[in-house]
Amino acid sequence: MREVYIVGAHESVHGNRRDADLRKLIAEAAIPAIKDAGIDKREIQAIYLANYNANQFNNQNTLAALAATSLGLPHVPTVRFEAACASGGVAFRQAYIAIAAGIYDTVLVLGVEKMNVPLEEADADMQLQWAKSGVDYRYESGVGMNGATMFAMFAHRHMHEYGTTREMLAFSASKNKYHASLNPYAYKQREVSVEKILKSPIVATPFSTQEVSLITDGSAAVVLTTKDKALGLNKKMAVKVLGSGHGGGSFSVAFRDSHVTMRATVAAAKEAYSMANLKPEDIDVVECHDCFSFTELMNIEDLGFVEKGKGGWFAMDGHTRLGGKLPVNTSGGLCAKGHPIGCTGVGQIVEMTWQLQDRAEKRQVKNAKYALTHVLGGPGAISAVHILGRSDL
Amino acid sequence: MREVYIVGAHESVHGNRRDADLRKLIAEAAIPAIKDAGIDKREIQAIYLANYNANQFNNQNTLAALAATSLGLPHVPTVRFEAACASGGVAFRQAYIAIAAGIYDTVLVLGVEKMNVPLEEADADMQLQWAKSGVDYRYESGVGMNGATMFAMFAHRHMHEYGTTREMLAFSASKNKYHASLNPYAYKQREVSVEKILKSPIVATPFSTQEVSLITDGSAAVVLTTKDKALGLNKKMAVKVLGSGHGGGSFSVAFRDSHVTMRATVAAAKEAYSMANLKPEDIDVVECHDCFSFTELMNIEDLGFVEKGKGGWFAMDGHTRLGGKLPVNTSGGLCAKGHPIGCTGVGQIVEMTWQLQDRAEKRQVKNAKYALTHVLGGPGAISAVHILGRSDL
Repeated sequence: MREVYIVGAHESVHGNRRDADLRKLIAEAAIPAIKDAGIDKREIQAIYLANYNANQFNNQNTLAALAATSLGLPHVPTVRFEAACASGGVAFRQAYIAIAAGIYDTVLVLGVEKMNVPLEEADADMQLQWAKSGVDYRYESGVGMNGATMFAMFAHRHMHEYGTTREMLAFSASKNKYHASLNPYAYKQREVSVEKILKSPIVATPFSTQEVSLITDGSAAVVLTTKDKALGLNKKMAVKVLGSGHGGGSFSVAFRDSHVTMRATVAAAKEAYSMANLKPEDIDVVECHDCFSFTELMNIEDLGFVEKGKGGWFAMDGHTRLGGKLPVNTSGGLCAKGHPIGCTGVGQIVEMTWQLQDRAEKRQVKNAKYALTHVLGGPGAISAVHILGRSDL
Repeated sequence: MREVYIVGAHESVHGNRRDADLRKLIAEAAIPAIKDAGIDKREIQAIYLANYNANQFNNQNTLAALAATSLGLPHVPTVRFEAACASGGVAFRQAYIAIAAGIYDTVLVLGVEKMNVPLEEADADMQLQWAKSGVDYRYESGVGMNGATMFAMFAHRHMHEYGTTREMLAFSASKNKYHASLNPYAYKQREVSVEKILKSPIVATPFSTQEVSLITDGSAAVVLTTKDKALGLNKKMAVKVLGSGHGGGSFSVAFRDSHVTMRATVAAAKEAYSMANLKPEDIDVVECHDCFSFTELMNIEDLGFVEKGKGGWFAMDGHTRLGGKLPVNTSGGLCAKGHPIGCTGVGQIVEMTWQLQDRAEKRQVKNAKYALTHVLGGPGAISAVHILGRSDL
């Protein structure tokens, strides 16, 4: 397999983007990412696009082809990837594999989602119906299973087994609000105290309104290419893809063998570490899938950074905060930067690319050499993990 | 890149499958395909699933993960591919690439779509809305563009430029009805005369009700693996993937530079022939994307089998009929076997695998050595072409 490099990265401002339709969101990420790569757009040989559900949100299917045409690249082959909240990570992986295999030299990976929809286009009934499409519609959506209720169950089980507390969840959430306050691309760029988080209205116990991922419009794009091409671009810094993993877990909650460990994450991480020939202790900075405050604590356990059950204590000790020994979600994460579903995994790659290029400004982790990204989708059914490395070409 | 082989293939009976939900359709293709491969299902390392729009048709997203869980493989990594009507071909290609690259040894490629939905679940207004999601929703769906009207325009232009006639279209459609009459998996297993086709009610001029692809429920599955593993299975016959191509064309009809040539098809075919080191005249049997009667005539031109403009004459001379020099759509094709959108491209691979294994029964093409499959989606925006070869291992 050939080595693969990231040579361009950008993302849109995340938020309730009333000013932007799908085309505008796509352009806001893709055009600067191509410019950042220093290539002519005609060098792009394929567009791999992650999108969860423009079918229902925007009544627009086949978004990868629409993206190619709207970017002035109508003759580029396209495909859309859907893997629930893991879509972006999985699309990135497939592009990585295609370049590694020698099929393409240069691929644009795009993630986009426009979730805020005017009520005249979709009433509340429709929006609730859409929420049901994210889980097993036939057997589980009807009994109240959805992202929030499932992760609430997982959190409760973790509290029961390991003594994790609501304060630990709120502490971790507050840390991410702080990170987002430093990120000009984040939806909510303001700090929120632990106290305020604990006093906010409950969505699904133990999660308050400050601890759930945001309904967000956003886009992100990265340009992937070969080592030869990356060197030829004579950039100060390309970022190398060192490891890629893709794991699975039961889609039906009824068939899960654990609610405190996501087997999809564990498997994806194992594959990625093995390919990169690295260990958790080698990683300097992480973006992981904190769809709820609790999820980040579980993730850092499943990714091998701390012993199972100790995620809350690790966070309380400040290790996951900027300046700590393993800054996690420097972007602000899904509850503060936002969670435009199909975009999220690509946005993580953008943030980690910037970190490894010393371009993360106020969020910069000093001397970051290795970064890890992690997405988890379909609640717990799909995970993709990538390990990226600084490469002073 | 490693060589890749098809070692198992199966599909469901196509039709208005009131008896089958998504799970049942998935099982009807996947379980026999795994059995056909002669492997234990636990040998499957990933499930790549093609589905166009279960989001809207069935309110079920993340279908690849649901498929894995319902097949008893909850810990297998999964991803769903959407590339409009080309979804199945594109999913197959990505699995091929992943095995060729050395990421996986054995992958199950699934295509499934359940399009017939009871009126109590989706009224006519909703179904019309869904049809609009298949084209550029913002700029083109509102002016009457959809699959039928676009291909009707393309057909008219072809008639104008090359003298193609309605009789040629009907003749080709009648040939495919005959093929479907021999296929126990086809939706409509009966012959229809050219005269009847010409007298049937018009859907979009020049297409009658007998010349449009069918709203179909169906599934198809193939097991892909490495050469070593294929040899180890000691099967009488595996089928080798010789070439794979993926092409793009404008998603917006407004930006097309031709309506009589699909640039996506031409590009995908060029890539596939080049990889296989074969020419059109080497191909013995073809499944191509006849979403309308006309499309097959255009496809056989774009795939290089006949000169541009001569597709109709080639069909009228009987060359594309079973027994002719290049049998096309031995399965019956999209207007007779049916067109469960995400399934179609995988179903084509199943039919061609059976042809190369001498298992196509009444539809068998004698001494078929090389087969080609072709899908075209998003009307004309995406194409995938594959070339398969007999390999007496």
